[in-house]
Amino acid sequence: MTVFTKIISGAIPSYKIAESEHFFAFLDIYPQVEGHVLVVPKIEVDKFFDLGDTYLAEMLVFAKPIAQAIEKSFPCNRCGMIVLGLEVPHAHLHLLPINTPSDLNFNRNKLTVTHGKLQEIQQKILAVMAV
Amino acid sequence: MTVFTKIISGAIPSYKIAESEHFFAFLDIYPQVEGHVLVVPKIEVDKFFDLGDTYLAEMLVFAKPIAQAIEKSFPCNRCGMIVLGLEVPHAHLHLLPINTPSDLNFNRNKLTVTHGKLQEIQQKILAVMAV
Repeated sequence: MTVFTKIISGAIPSYKIAESEHFFAFLDIYPQVEGHVLVVPKIEVDKFFDLGDTYLAEMLVFAKPIAQAIEKSFPCNRCGMIVLGLEVPHAHLHLLPINTPSDLNFNRNKLTVTHGKLQEIQQKILAVMAV
Repeated sequence: MTVFTKIISGAIPSYKIAESEHFFAFLDIYPQVEGHVLVVPKIEVDKFFDLGDTYLAEMLVFAKPIAQAIEKSFPCNRCGMIVLGLEVPHAHLHLLPINTPSDLNFNRNKLTVTHGKLQEIQQKILAVMAV
C-alpha cells in the first residue's frame, strides 16, 4: 500500500479537503507554500498518464473548486498545478497558490508548518469551498 | 489575440504535435528540456481553472498520447506536467520529459534550440504517436 492509499483509507490521518468516488484531496504536510493541496486518485497507478481515461477526464473537474478556493484563500496570482511523481509511486497532482515560478520549484526547501497552522489552512480552504 | 491563438490559426508557424476540436499541441520553442510540448485550448481563457468543465474533462485525455510519446521519445523518468500561466494570458499546460524536479524549475535558463533540432524533436514525437 502506498502512503496515499493509507491516507485515503484513514490509516494515516490527513487534513482532508475534498473527496469523490474516484479522488481524494488533502493538504501536503510538507508544503511549498501555504495552501498546497494534493489530489490523488483512489487507485494505485504509478505514472500519471497511465491513469485510465475516466480518471483523467474527472480529475481536473474534481480539482477545479479546490483550485478556485485556493485562489480566493491565499494572496496569489493564481492556482498553479504540477505533476512530478518522482517520489511516491501513486499518481497525484499538486495544486498551490503561486506568485512566481519559484513557488513550483520543488528543489526549494519546504515550509515547516505546525499542526495548528495546517488546521487553520484547511479550515480557510473549506470555508471558501462551502460558499 | 493571444500569441497562442495566432499559433492555433497558423498566423504564427509552429511545430505542431496534435490537434482536436478543442485543443492544439505544439513544441515550446524556448524549451526547458528537449521534448517540451504546450497544450492549449482553442479559446482564450486566462486562468486554467476558469476553463469550462468540457475543456477540463477533455484536456488530460487529449494530452495522454502526447505524454506517452514524450516518455518513449526521450531519456526520462516520466512525463511531467506543469501549469503556471504567469506570462501568456491564455490557459495552457506544459508537458515535458523529466528526470529531476529541476526540469520543471521555470526559473532555470531555457535551452537554445535550432530550427533543425526542433523539427527533429517534432518528428521524433510524431513517429511514436503514429505507432
